[in-house]
Amino acid sequence: MPMYVVGHKIPDSDSICGAIALAYLKNQIGEEAIAARLGEPSPETAFILERFGFEAPLYKEHYAGEQVYIVDHSELTQAPDDIAEATIVGIVDHHKLGDLTTSTPLECWIRPVGCSNTVIKMMYDFYNVEIPKNIAGIMMCAILSDTVIFKSPTCTTADIKCVEALAEIAGIEDYKALGMEMFKVKSAVEGTPVRDLVMRDFKDFNMNGNLVGIGQLEVIDLSVFDQVKAELEADIAALKAEGNRHSVLLLLTDIMKEGSEMLVVSDDADLTERAYGKATENGRVWLDGVLSRKKQVVPPLQEAFA
Amino acid sequence: MPMYVVGHKIPDSDSICGAIALAYLKNQIGEEAIAARLGEPSPETAFILERFGFEAPLYKEHYAGEQVYIVDHSELTQAPDDIAEATIVGIVDHHKLGDLTTSTPLECWIRPVGCSNTVIKMMYDFYNVEIPKNIAGIMMCAILSDTVIFKSPTCTTADIKCVEALAEIAGIEDYKALGMEMFKVKSAVEGTPVRDLVMRDFKDFNMNGNLVGIGQLEVIDLSVFDQVKAELEADIAALKAEGNRHSVLLLLTDIMKEGSEMLVVSDDADLTERAYGKATENGRVWLDGVLSRKKQVVPPLQEAFA
Repeated sequence: MPMYVVGHKIPDSDSICGAIALAYLKNQIGEEAIAARLGEPSPETAFILERFGFEAPLYKEHYAGEQVYIVDHSELTQAPDDIAEATIVGIVDHHKLGDLTTSTPLECWIRPVGCSNTVIKMMYDFYNVEIPKNIAGIMMCAILSDTVIFKSPTCTTADIKCVEALAEIAGIEDYKALGMEMFKVKSAVEGTPVRDLVMRDFKDFNMNGNLVGIGQLEVIDLSVFDQVKAELEADIAALKAEGNRHSVLLLLTDIMKEGSEMLVVSDDADLTERAYGKATENGRVWLDGVLSRKKQVVPPLQEAFA
Repeated sequence: MPMYVVGHKIPDSDSICGAIALAYLKNQIGEEAIAARLGEPSPETAFILERFGFEAPLYKEHYAGEQVYIVDHSELTQAPDDIAEATIVGIVDHHKLGDLTTSTPLECWIRPVGCSNTVIKMMYDFYNVEIPKNIAGIMMCAILSDTVIFKSPTCTTADIKCVEALAEIAGIEDYKALGMEMFKVKSAVEGTPVRDLVMRDFKDFNMNGNLVGIGQLEVIDLSVFDQVKAELEADIAALKAEGNRHSVLLLLTDIMKEGSEMLVVSDDADLTERAYGKATENGRVWLDGVLSRKKQVVPPLQEAFA
């Protein structure tokens, strides 16, 4: 029985590239594996796949009765809806430990690094499997994306060394230029429906019983949002109501200025004051130096809900 | 700030030896670590520690505000009572994924092998740290204990290879003889208070909201229990009442005959029928071939509660 290797809902480049890279590795060591996805590739991911000649993995929603290897999270809210009826055989991740549980032993490769693909590289090294050129390319791009070309506070020396090694395998001389090209693709918001922008990199978290949705858009210049900010605000308010959420937060991250404007709709008017020591004014708050949802946005928020 | 490396409540040899071995490794790679324990070493563990010249790790109950590295489980019921107020920096384990969660990224080295010390050996290899002779000895004994000298269905080729490598480092020629010596120590039940026997290797599980306690005594001949079986049965009934448990099960495992007699007190008279297809008669049921609580006892029970 093959295992399906699948990342989180609303997949980012780490989830998609990680699924492809890990499925290849598993097949090389004699464990049949199929890369899968829970949603459409983002424009950034589509750019990466095309650049290195890959098709998107299999779109698959249901996993009851299947073996599943989870990539890039360990949260029920980010897993397939029927994950409780599947057998989780492994997890590769770089986030906090979430609420997925299993009834049988499994493997977990979880490390506090900047990207799941950095951990997958460690798995290739452990099994002594050679990484094909094009797979090295997509793994490298996933790490450049997750670490915001090494600017994110989540970036570790392991991530940097990993990108350097993968760039050499992939034959990419100027990987930072490729990273910037990628972020330019990511910054093109014009012509995209507002809901698509909000959902592009959106994750729901269970915070002490409260459902909190947090989206993030990383761009090279926040001015791209000037024309659509009011629409974004209206849309996250609608999303909060639709999903019965306590709060919906949207991070507009400027990777060059290295900070984020957070758009906030919440049942708790003091939420950002308590979590980040900065009050929300007219539904907006600027968080200087904040690039990472995982490291800088989620943990203080969880404390605020505790 | 040092991290405390600590195994589960009612520690077995894997928890104690693993804490010592992992704390040593962490200190070698520049991360200050202190081995700790949540309870008294069993006679088997005391034998191992004495054989290789170790003191028992620090007894420490409270961890609020501390950094903790969890060994040999990922379950709230088996962790320090105040674990929610501590920061879990890592987990090394070989069981199903439990209900521990964190609010920050961590490392998890979890593999479906027979013993946490087999995973800790992988960590030594990853960091390229030499294992001292005496630490190799206690790691080897922990693996021989958890895998019942390779007889348990939880034993993998990784465990066997690991024992062989550790035996060579420790300079032990006949490791199976040492294993049998260890199980003879484990089999000496005479003169031990009945409650101590029941609790010697006892774990509580949350099964779909029901608290289920499962103890196990592994011996080389079940006849050692002839004189005390009635007392054991009275004591697990008392334990069930005291702890508000749905069921208390005690496995009397014969490692030579390779099977277990299960003593059962439960709110559900059909529990073993539903879980194992064998009815309990007069509070007892023989489970042929059953050596492993983790692999053969817990998963079917969880299914029965699902």
